[in-house]
Amino acid sequence: MASKAPRPTLALVGATGAVGAVTQQVLAMRADIWGEIRAAASADDAGTVLVVCGREVVVQELSPEFFDGVDIALVDVPAPVAALWAPIAAARGAVVIDNSSALRGDPEVPLVVPEVNPLQIRNRPKGIIANPGATTLTMIDALGVLHAGWELTELVVASYQAASGAGRVGMARLYDELEVVSGHRELGHQPGDVRRLIEHELGAESPFPAPLALNVIPWIGVAAEDGWTSEELKIRNETRKVLGLPDLRVSATCVRVPVVTTHSVAVHATFARKIDVGEARQALVEAPAVVVLDDPESLEFPTPSDIVGSDPRFAGRLRQALDFPNTLDFFICGDNLRKGAALNMVQVAELVARDLAVV
Amino acid sequence: MASKAPRPTLALVGATGAVGAVTQQVLAMRADIWGEIRAAASADDAGTVLVVCGREVVVQELSPEFFDGVDIALVDVPAPVAALWAPIAAARGAVVIDNSSALRGDPEVPLVVPEVNPLQIRNRPKGIIANPGATTLTMIDALGVLHAGWELTELVVASYQAASGAGRVGMARLYDELEVVSGHRELGHQPGDVRRLIEHELGAESPFPAPLALNVIPWIGVAAEDGWTSEELKIRNETRKVLGLPDLRVSATCVRVPVVTTHSVAVHATFARKIDVGEARQALVEAPAVVVLDDPESLEFPTPSDIVGSDPRFAGRLRQALDFPNTLDFFICGDNLRKGAALNMVQVAELVARDLAVV
Repeated sequence: MASKAPRPTLALVGATGAVGAVTQQVLAMRADIWGEIRAAASADDAGTVLVVCGREVVVQELSPEFFDGVDIALVDVPAPVAALWAPIAAARGAVVIDNSSALRGDPEVPLVVPEVNPLQIRNRPKGIIANPGATTLTMIDALGVLHAGWELTELVVASYQAASGAGRVGMARLYDELEVVSGHRELGHQPGDVRRLIEHELGAESPFPAPLALNVIPWIGVAAEDGWTSEELKIRNETRKVLGLPDLRVSATCVRVPVVTTHSVAVHATFARKIDVGEARQALVEAPAVVVLDDPESLEFPTPSDIVGSDPRFAGRLRQALDFPNTLDFFICGDNLRKGAALNMVQVAELVARDLAVV
Repeated sequence: MASKAPRPTLALVGATGAVGAVTQQVLAMRADIWGEIRAAASADDAGTVLVVCGREVVVQELSPEFFDGVDIALVDVPAPVAALWAPIAAARGAVVIDNSSALRGDPEVPLVVPEVNPLQIRNRPKGIIANPGATTLTMIDALGVLHAGWELTELVVASYQAASGAGRVGMARLYDELEVVSGHRELGHQPGDVRRLIEHELGAESPFPAPLALNVIPWIGVAAEDGWTSEELKIRNETRKVLGLPDLRVSATCVRVPVVTTHSVAVHATFARKIDVGEARQALVEAPAVVVLDDPESLEFPTPSDIVGSDPRFAGRLRQALDFPNTLDFFICGDNLRKGAALNMVQVAELVARDLAVV
């Protein structure tokens, strides 16, 4: 109402994927500040009709012209596709918010989490803003709050990442595998028995590099340097960039678990100053998007299936590391499709829209 | 053959549980050095006939007289039961190998892992030797080998622990829950939807403090001091005791995952000296009971369902921590019913039997 500017045109690219579906849910739950809304996907899905904020939107095939007149484009496509199309969209005048990993490392592309570094949306010489990965987003605003109080110096994390991190095909594979193993109470006792049954029933081709039902898989992403995975290095690089701590010491182990949606992270965070667990808890309680579920006496702690589908991050198991005076250990869960992807993109889009209206 | 001593009498206490069943499998696969074999369990299971090393063994109800003439007793019962019965068995002349946590912290009870501290079997003034917990046993011989080379100073670990850590009822609950959720492809998207369906179908009473199917649970054991669980403090205390490092700095986060059997641990281990990943790998390759599965280029890494039912520990994902020059990160899996319980007890029993024969 303060602004007389026309409502911005929003484009959803990759609208028919798992993140696209949640983006539409998230948009429906928030104040509708948008004018026209467009959607694009691969040719296979062109013609699909979506309902976005009450508008019927026909999915188009991606083309340069699709972006003409678009103010803000939320792009959720594989990294090579994003690397190609994000600059095209930006060249056509859209501010691009890209959820792939393609451009997160580019020093001319800011990596923005509204609760942590909102002002970085303005530092976008290429017209592109990147969304961090879902594992980083699970813990980054809790870390931001703690860093503000105690100055983060080291981070050792192990993740428990959900199937939907691999998109719709990841979720479908997990459901398929669960149906195959269900009722087989002899499974899980002999080497490879789960793998043999699943590969016999479903074939070996999978979005995951091992069976996921009745298993955990310590390999996510692709091989990077020296035995690290791309996913593990992303956590290091993205945390450093969002927090503005280029020398932060980080070690991450990323593991896929048979959960549909919501990533969890076991965090061992070390600070420059001695951290008091009561003060840390209070800082997290006051953080707007973090909910503290931490009453061990009544078995209150976050689990992914209990918090999936909600917007905040849920932190629990807060404890002072017994042998590390400046270290806090905790466990934190966040919906990897919401804050871990769609919600953060929409929040960034809203910040940009407000900023465009002011300018 | 070297010894003319009569073959020792072996007693299995808690013979009808999940660990008892695997103990019988393990005994059947090893050289039969035993004379008489007896078995005891709770009154409910008395009269059950087991076949142990080819002998038919009728399960007896536990009594003081049960231990008369027993040389070595393998005890796998809940901690309060063990605290009561282990001294009774020892008073009747048996060397007790106790798998509960009841006596692990007693300075007069050695905690023995044959690959790490075999000579400790002789320091048993109470006639009792304790078996470490399964999570400690998953990583302890790998840590022992690395400690011998580089001197361990700090340990940060996060676990992925299987349902059978809660015994037969734990496995049964996981299978039950999987049958309930299987086929419900709408599950895992709304807060608590998995919990509601499972509690509706199976009731809320469970060996686990939250749903385990399609979930992970960051709470194992009971509340200990300052927000830590008993399971997390066990890892700290047991690792220190087995390695003889009372000041080792340890932080552990223990998480239950929907795997039937085999615990996994993400390990971040720091040493007094700079560690070279190639040398560390070679040391682990040479360790008799550790198998290194670590060829990232061909996606070779250990997963619990691939290695369950086998004796060694399987280590992979070995990498030099990028920002911590003296730190090695790795992922390790071990069958929590075999090495994590039955196998280690049997190995200790064999050491004691050999020692008794010599004496």
